[in-house]
Amino acid sequence: MANNAQKLDFAMSGFPEFTPEVRALEQAWLAKLARVFESYGYANIETPSVETVATLASKGEDVDKEIYALTRLAAEAGSTPKFALHYDLTVPTARYVAKHYSNLTFPFKRYQMQRAWRGERPQEGRFREFTQCDIDVIDSETVSHAFDAEMLEMAVVALTALDVGPVKFQVSNRRIMDGLASSLGLADATRLARILDKVDKLSGEQLAERLSTELALDTRAIDTCIAFCKVYGNADAISNGLDALKLDADAIGEGRDQLCTLLDRVEATRPENYIIDGDLSISRGFDYYTGVVYEARFIDFPDYPSICAGGRYENLVSSFMRRKLPGVGISIGLTRIFTKLLKEGLVTPGRKSPTQVLVANEEEGAGDTAHALAAQIRALGVNVEVLPDVARLDKQLKYANDKGIPFVWLTRDGTAFLKDMSNGTQSEIDLDSFAKRFAES
Amino acid sequence: MANNAQKLDFAMSGFPEFTPEVRALEQAWLAKLARVFESYGYANIETPSVETVATLASKGEDVDKEIYALTRLAAEAGSTPKFALHYDLTVPTARYVAKHYSNLTFPFKRYQMQRAWRGERPQEGRFREFTQCDIDVIDSETVSHAFDAEMLEMAVVALTALDVGPVKFQVSNRRIMDGLASSLGLADATRLARILDKVDKLSGEQLAERLSTELALDTRAIDTCIAFCKVYGNADAISNGLDALKLDADAIGEGRDQLCTLLDRVEATRPENYIIDGDLSISRGFDYYTGVVYEARFIDFPDYPSICAGGRYENLVSSFMRRKLPGVGISIGLTRIFTKLLKEGLVTPGRKSPTQVLVANEEEGAGDTAHALAAQIRALGVNVEVLPDVARLDKQLKYANDKGIPFVWLTRDGTAFLKDMSNGTQSEIDLDSFAKRFAES
Repeated sequence: MANNAQKLDFAMSGFPEFTPEVRALEQAWLAKLARVFESYGYANIETPSVETVATLASKGEDVDKEIYALTRLAAEAGSTPKFALHYDLTVPTARYVAKHYSNLTFPFKRYQMQRAWRGERPQEGRFREFTQCDIDVIDSETVSHAFDAEMLEMAVVALTALDVGPVKFQVSNRRIMDGLASSLGLADATRLARILDKVDKLSGEQLAERLSTELALDTRAIDTCIAFCKVYGNADAISNGLDALKLDADAIGEGRDQLCTLLDRVEATRPENYIIDGDLSISRGFDYYTGVVYEARFIDFPDYPSICAGGRYENLVSSFMRRKLPGVGISIGLTRIFTKLLKEGLVTPGRKSPTQVLVANEEEGAGDTAHALAAQIRALGVNVEVLPDVARLDKQLKYANDKGIPFVWLTRDGTAFLKDMSNGTQSEIDLDSFAKRFAES
Repeated sequence: MANNAQKLDFAMSGFPEFTPEVRALEQAWLAKLARVFESYGYANIETPSVETVATLASKGEDVDKEIYALTRLAAEAGSTPKFALHYDLTVPTARYVAKHYSNLTFPFKRYQMQRAWRGERPQEGRFREFTQCDIDVIDSETVSHAFDAEMLEMAVVALTALDVGPVKFQVSNRRIMDGLASSLGLADATRLARILDKVDKLSGEQLAERLSTELALDTRAIDTCIAFCKVYGNADAISNGLDALKLDADAIGEGRDQLCTLLDRVEATRPENYIIDGDLSISRGFDYYTGVVYEARFIDFPDYPSICAGGRYENLVSSFMRRKLPGVGISIGLTRIFTKLLKEGLVTPGRKSPTQVLVANEEEGAGDTAHALAAQIRALGVNVEVLPDVARLDKQLKYANDKGIPFVWLTRDGTAFLKDMSNGTQSEIDLDSFAKRFAES
């Protein structure tokens, strides 16, 4: 990763946009991610930016108030919005699978790289409009736990392909949380998970206070919860940590086994600069997770929000159709990763222009000759342009230089030369020798 | 173009979405368009989906009422929206150029392939969310008229690359309309253009009525306007048609010359199944056009809305900054074209899955062997997948068949075979011979 700090530019607060050379890099990233996802057999889909408010409502805590609803600018005041912008890609995919059920083959493996919107207060790493790159597999009745590992493996391969630097994955399993809740005599694990999800944001006292007032837990139970959140490490560490808590073995057994099997399995493919740990403090804010949950952060920027997250969900599609279609997926926060590395100067923007050859246009009345020559070069598969109006050569060379165009084709006394802008040398050229040279490059 | 009629599927009325095999085709189209645009040296940009309401307002007739504004779902009633979804890509680009002025090199040549939103009543060819593919060039002070021709040439090359069938381009120039207005003693050509833009939708009587009541034109002037709208054809036909109207020669001269030069220039590159005609009835609804205007339709579906449109604008960027930055551009209505050809069965969807090889997973406990083999095949650059749970071979072959996966790798008594799903034959294989075969394909 090169050091090349970029000033970020925002059209409107929370709505990032990039100059062409930065966009060129973002496009290269999207192409790399697509390559990785397709290499595992995932097909691309897109869903509308919009879902009905009914579809989006009540899938996650704290999200409703961030949803952007659509109203016609000219609509009468007080009309109830019917449509809203999606805040993630998981809920739209669940709706998509229900809708297209009879035309899909299961297991349905898809990737989706689209924008999502949240009406958050913009701050570092939090945007109102951002691009997510999601992979999910959804199957009929059951989804193999091998996919829990495949998701993690693909996320690691994808982030490695983007060369984002050292990353720490934290993995847990909601069933262990369910086991904790039932061990403590709580009927509803969701409320417990929501509170423990705040373990990084609350002090120990604040956490204890909430567990006491909201769930009526006694001091011993609260201590267990706090100790639970501190269990992390490899499969052995998770097993030993859970044993020490002396929870109901039947209640936590399945979740623990799934987590430990997964951790053992992915350890073999872990890159050197990655950490993949079990961490029971991870529960993810979305209520729809029912099994494994993942979260990843930059090791070098530990306070930066998570850059990758996901998990297993059993009942998301079934809220749209009467079928059991469980799934597991992971989401890469492209905009969040990209803007951070850009700001830190850890990535190098691409070129300002895709043009490979500028055909110089110097002779009065020769515009058509230059355009005809450009057309011949373009027919070879080369990106080529002509400045439409005759200008002095130095002005045209400056244009090529400013846009990072590598070659200029110019004519002197009837002889054509190709000028290499990287070193200023020029050599005689004709279409045939250029075609040969281009084919070899 | 194959005949393969598809049932269109809409998640919500006016918000199209596609199954994976149709999306695969849409992606191939986007890649082809990007290829054409980059071959002329145009760089990709994206802008946020959202602009401020102030930016979007008052750029075109009849658009304000179709703009979707954003409000938080939980916002208090009656709060004024600050942001709205863009209804085209031209206005956002003008704002983009003003914002990033000092970081861009001019002439700034960009392409943009993004969604846009209009709160229209959904009907054939009219969507609430759709993808447009725009090319524009914006320059300082003046934009060469050679770009008027380049836009048209690129649109023709792009539509030809998509193999959309016969297309008719209609080209006019707003300056001729200005000349008509001043010849008739009207101070404001915009109102005249807006009325004449409806020439296809109104009867001759209705048109005459509006010209009479709204612009106070007399019968002779009205007849001139109606005759004006009937002028069409090649450069000679336009010239002769305008001469017959006996308008103020000074007022119409510049626009006529620009149009005739353009028509002569593009005639040389016109494909056989395309018509490129001057047509003075074309004025485009957007008020910001000031020179050439383009519009294209399917010849085979003459009542279907325009599939491509654009023109030259002098003052769009200057509404965001105190500089003269005129531009010219053209927009390809991807969703409109794609959904029509799909509905008519004139395009063939792609594959349901990008997978090239399914590694069969048959032996109990052999899952890891199959995954390890898949990883080796994937490392060759092949898209490969494994069904995670052991299943009978016929079930796995059915999966490959249903998803259109061309090859299945299976093992019999320690010997590997590659089964060609297109003809059912299988042949002995090993990694080396597969790598060789794949590299040659």
